[in-house]
Amino acid sequence: MTSIEDLHARVALTWLAEPGTRSVHQLVGRLGAVDTLELLLDGGAPDDTLRATVAARLEAGDPRAVAAEAVALVDRLGARIVCPADDEWPAPLGDLERLELPGATRKVDRETAPPLCLWVRGGWPLAEVLDRSVAVVGARAATGYGVHVATELGYGLADREWTVVSGGAFGIDAAAHRGALNAGGVTVAVLACGVDRPYPMGNSALFDRIAETGLLVSEWLPGAEPLRPRFLVRNRVIAAGTRGSVLVEAAARSGAAQTMHRAIALRRPSMVVPGPVTSALSVGAHELLREYGDTRLVTGLAHVLEEVGRIGVDLAPPARGAARPTDILDDEATMVRESMPRRGTVGADVLAARAGVPVRTALRKLALLEELGLVARRDDGYALTRPPSR
Amino acid sequence: MTSIEDLHARVALTWLAEPGTRSVHQLVGRLGAVDTLELLLDGGAPDDTLRATVAARLEAGDPRAVAAEAVALVDRLGARIVCPADDEWPAPLGDLERLELPGATRKVDRETAPPLCLWVRGGWPLAEVLDRSVAVVGARAATGYGVHVATELGYGLADREWTVVSGGAFGIDAAAHRGALNAGGVTVAVLACGVDRPYPMGNSALFDRIAETGLLVSEWLPGAEPLRPRFLVRNRVIAAGTRGSVLVEAAARSGAAQTMHRAIALRRPSMVVPGPVTSALSVGAHELLREYGDTRLVTGLAHVLEEVGRIGVDLAPPARGAARPTDILDDEATMVRESMPRRGTVGADVLAARAGVPVRTALRKLALLEELGLVARRDDGYALTRPPSR
Repeated sequence: MTSIEDLHARVALTWLAEPGTRSVHQLVGRLGAVDTLELLLDGGAPDDTLRATVAARLEAGDPRAVAAEAVALVDRLGARIVCPADDEWPAPLGDLERLELPGATRKVDRETAPPLCLWVRGGWPLAEVLDRSVAVVGARAATGYGVHVATELGYGLADREWTVVSGGAFGIDAAAHRGALNAGGVTVAVLACGVDRPYPMGNSALFDRIAETGLLVSEWLPGAEPLRPRFLVRNRVIAAGTRGSVLVEAAARSGAAQTMHRAIALRRPSMVVPGPVTSALSVGAHELLREYGDTRLVTGLAHVLEEVGRIGVDLAPPARGAARPTDILDDEATMVRESMPRRGTVGADVLAARAGVPVRTALRKLALLEELGLVARRDDGYALTRPPSR
Repeated sequence: MTSIEDLHARVALTWLAEPGTRSVHQLVGRLGAVDTLELLLDGGAPDDTLRATVAARLEAGDPRAVAAEAVALVDRLGARIVCPADDEWPAPLGDLERLELPGATRKVDRETAPPLCLWVRGGWPLAEVLDRSVAVVGARAATGYGVHVATELGYGLADREWTVVSGGAFGIDAAAHRGALNAGGVTVAVLACGVDRPYPMGNSALFDRIAETGLLVSEWLPGAEPLRPRFLVRNRVIAAGTRGSVLVEAAARSGAAQTMHRAIALRRPSMVVPGPVTSALSVGAHELLREYGDTRLVTGLAHVLEEVGRIGVDLAPPARGAARPTDILDDEATMVRESMPRRGTVGADVLAARAGVPVRTALRKLALLEELGLVARRDDGYALTRPPSR
């Protein structure tokens, strides 16, 4: 359970510096949220960037007042604020402390510390719901193919009682959420803006359904705008909060691929659905499969369950065509059968010669073929009952 | 140059035992073709299976007579017989001596020795044409998607002066051959029957074009029928005779996948084109990519050239979306831009506060944005020239 002071301090710190800022997270770890806020407000930030950021934000308002105002909104929004000390807090987010993205130069790739607190709308306990969850992410400008696959995946996962986590965006995200909702399952939308105004507006009906039966989650205060960099900041929570991530469609430059980079760096199962090579919306998916040995090609629910399911359970069945009687034929039997005339009959001796096997072998195999109803014995020899497929 | 006796013996041995029989190949290596034939005809085969096979074939005719008859046909067929001692012989086929397919139980997977000789129809020197060749194989019941991709690949490879090798079957094989022909390039069909009666008949017009501008190749004597096991026996030649193999479409149970298993075991570049996970004709392709770490996902010509091309040359361009002016923006500039109102103007100080950066930083970034034509300075502040895409 979190003290009210600690709660307010965490909200204030989230407003003061963008979520994920490592230096802030480290200070909170050492001093606690209350003293960290104190320190920053006294201009005691450990580095110039943070000091400048704090100074700039202070021009916009008093963090304590902003936090108090935001916390006061909680009930009216039907929301709650979850902190690391609370039972609801998803422990796997702690892995973000050690997240390092290879060749990270951009701020959004470096400042990937765990959230200080999360705003949650919806009835379920967050940790419990995320404990058995899979992220399904992808392009906004999805194709009919991608939407179909994402919907099926969302439905199938929810049907197997897995929580479907995504970003609430148009295209693949929305399809995954909808699939889960249609299965009567739980789905979680992790937002890059306040939980009071889920973005995009076009999905507001979807967000309402999610808030009723699943969860809306965000690090940002109510009223926060979905600024572009925030989507990438948000993606680390989707990658860290789930058992694994599935990318359905992504163009060559894609935010969804960024989520996968985070999942890969976190050593979470990172799954990619391939698509037609003629589709621009699968270019990003194929590049991930080509460039990252850790990504796994998945073609559907069975493969995904195989990756995230517990060992021994949820194993994907091997791909198989329909079994044919001829499958059990050995080489000699096959050769004998293939050597028979398509029409008319043939003697065992001639057949043996054509098949290149001894006559007695030919007779043995002919008996087997007769057993299987592939060959019929006639007065003047043997005949095919149906032609072998080529 | 091969002696006429040696040539006749090799043809006779090919007729006596199916091509690829290891014991026969080893005997020929030790004793030469002439003495090996002698030995087998005297019932001196080293193992029962071979002895039985020989005995059975002898019931169908005299090998020497059959060989003489076949060789006599050569000129009338506009064909020639190429043996290992000839300049035309493709040396890479020698790798088949060491080919071992993991878990091989079926005869066609064990008897994978190099051919004793090859029947060739067409003007080009075989070794020269195969030296720079790629195999393109796949399903007969191909989809429009697969046919499109295979045709493009065949065209593109031929256009870059790579020989396109395939099996002359319906679907992917035919599409690859046609693509190469349309590019005015060289294509080679490796057959599982005599070069005098290419199978399937439905492709006879295609085979005629290939014989005119490319090559028809087979291990079997004229008149030999395309018995089912022979397609798999033939596949080892396609895999070993080329620099690499590309699989375009394959159902769950597929002969094309068998060619890939051989290419993988031969350590040749083994490339697979993914497809829609909703397509049964891509199931085999996706399974190869999932089960064999050595297979490479390729989406088109550039990727294939990267695999088979010489180091440093033919490198695939990285997948990229169209570059946008915003690509060069750093995080602060992006944040400043994203913090601007979609309509109307804003002052630098307010903007700095919203963006969480110092005012002087905001001014510096605003100057840059103005440079790029993304922001315009007005009397009462700054305005977006166009809304940022989200």
